[in-house]
Amino acid sequence: MNDARADPTAAERVANSYPKGERRRAEIIETAFSVFASDSYRGASMVQIAAAVGISRAGLLHHFPTKESLLAAVLEERDRVNGVRYFEGADPQRDGIDYFRHLLRLVDANAGQRELVQLFATLSTEAADPGHPAHGYFVDRYRWLEADIDHALGEAASRGLLRPGRDLDGVARDLIALIDGLQIQWLIDPTGIDIGARLRRRLAEFLTADLEA
Amino acid sequence: MNDARADPTAAERVANSYPKGERRRAEIIETAFSVFASDSYRGASMVQIAAAVGISRAGLLHHFPTKESLLAAVLEERDRVNGVRYFEGADPQRDGIDYFRHLLRLVDANAGQRELVQLFATLSTEAADPGHPAHGYFVDRYRWLEADIDHALGEAASRGLLRPGRDLDGVARDLIALIDGLQIQWLIDPTGIDIGARLRRRLAEFLTADLEA
Repeated sequence: MNDARADPTAAERVANSYPKGERRRAEIIETAFSVFASDSYRGASMVQIAAAVGISRAGLLHHFPTKESLLAAVLEERDRVNGVRYFEGADPQRDGIDYFRHLLRLVDANAGQRELVQLFATLSTEAADPGHPAHGYFVDRYRWLEADIDHALGEAASRGLLRPGRDLDGVARDLIALIDGLQIQWLIDPTGIDIGARLRRRLAEFLTADLEA
Repeated sequence: MNDARADPTAAERVANSYPKGERRRAEIIETAFSVFASDSYRGASMVQIAAAVGISRAGLLHHFPTKESLLAAVLEERDRVNGVRYFEGADPQRDGIDYFRHLLRLVDANAGQRELVQLFATLSTEAADPGHPAHGYFVDRYRWLEADIDHALGEAASRGLLRPGRDLDGVARDLIALIDGLQIQWLIDPTGIDIGARLRRRLAEFLTADLEA
């Protein structure tokens, strides 16, 4: 019962959520996201992205004068979408357990978003080079992610929800590493890997609260 | 007190350890390793590697007819070197604790080998694509690494060296993820990250044996 008109592509869905004048820009960002995910940022060219959108190179450069500016727009858009979709209302300093429930929903959702996971995995290793245009983005991203998790653990501890004898030093980085590292294994061979289940299990070693509520 | 003749480059050191006829081949592998690490496998070209070695493209193709064959040689050489340098005599099914001591020495040594860590981090995410020439290598690599760690944990458990109430299911993958994930953070910003220390700490949550002996 698929109706082509009722089943728009991802690019069309994004494009339709913008005012008419910004649709082309949104369409370029969505296409660049796919190209960066499949061919890596370094491997992708502006000519290739223009062709995938179905516009000229000059038309693409009108919206994004450099590949760097296009990458910045792709990352900004993904953070905006993730923020709205998974972290709206979440505040690790106000309710740490609620923050972890939001984080777990994001990790579970990623199991259905291979392209997104692939993009961030590839970019994060490319961006280790200080000359890479996303280097600053990833330095910042790991800092605020670590700070958020530290705050969430600290808030839970302040309410007596931490198991006795647990040392939280370095745990935020370990939890991020668990997610990132399992994603690499999952991308290479997803058989038998449930990242959300492993993260729940690790969090349950520290927290007494029910993370499913 | 640096004497240029007493301080050979890495390529020279490798080259000198081979019979004269194979020196050029070893030199190409060492140079390709550096180029793949800095520019990624996808981003590197055979012309660029030939120039870095100081030979013609035809000269390079005489030794390695394709970039794929050169990558295979680079990975094979790294596994050979790592096996000799860090795992000689280690057998996870015979002595699990001894195996973990070897693994910790490798992880500690990696802190001084940024280029090597960068190469494997970049390749492992590129190779998620089933069409990538290193895909099979990484599928196999994660399988034997997981099997080795499982064997080591099982051997230690069989000698009563496991803390009570520990479930080992999935732990091997989690440990690999911890190493891989912390390496990503370390490559982006090494400040305050000691991967060996975190791995020791995690292993000590499972094992009662002294891992430093």
